[in-house]
Amino acid sequence: MKPAKTPEPPYYAVIFTSTRTTVDAGYGATADRMVELAARQAGFLGVESARGEDGLGITVSYWDSEEAIANWRRHGEHTLARERGRREWYESFVTRVAKVERVASFERE
Amino acid sequence: MKPAKTPEPPYYAVIFTSTRTTVDAGYGATADRMVELAARQAGFLGVESARGEDGLGITVSYWDSEEAIANWRRHGEHTLARERGRREWYESFVTRVAKVERVASFERE
Repeated sequence: MKPAKTPEPPYYAVIFTSTRTTVDAGYGATADRMVELAARQAGFLGVESARGEDGLGITVSYWDSEEAIANWRRHGEHTLARERGRREWYESFVTRVAKVERVASFERE
Repeated sequence: MKPAKTPEPPYYAVIFTSTRTTVDAGYGATADRMVELAARQAGFLGVESARGEDGLGITVSYWDSEEAIANWRRHGEHTLARERGRREWYESFVTRVAKVERVASFERE
């Protein structure tokens, strides 16, 4: 995975930081499915995701508007996945919605 | 590492997403040192960092103001580390500065 290619700001970022329980049943397939579904939503701009060896996971998804974020939040399959996440998969998480104001990027030639 | 404990929004997030070169010399020690130094800056609120098995790294640092971000950017040792990062350690990166507007969190009991 590479840093997401996003258009000029402003746009929105949803920063989802989590630690997992030891329950793995269905987690990987659901996580993949959510990325696949999110990418089909109107207003989706990109996603970046990493989970380190110490167990902290960070997923940042980018959206063109607050409305796009709200629509994705209401999506039925996503809502069910979030509920299962609270019941089974996550020890803790924080979701932060932020407005991206400035971007700088670098790519080695 | 756990999700950072941050105060009520608004505050700022610097989302740094990167892929690395194969050059490791000095990288880990410098990364640790930058976290240690950042944490001593006025206006620092917290940091979260993860690098996944596919090589994508995401570090999100949180700050109470744009001024705090600008001051950290001007810090001498941080400036030198960024320059070395472009010369040696990073294949690509994107830095996004965003204003956090809303937060939701969950912690298992």
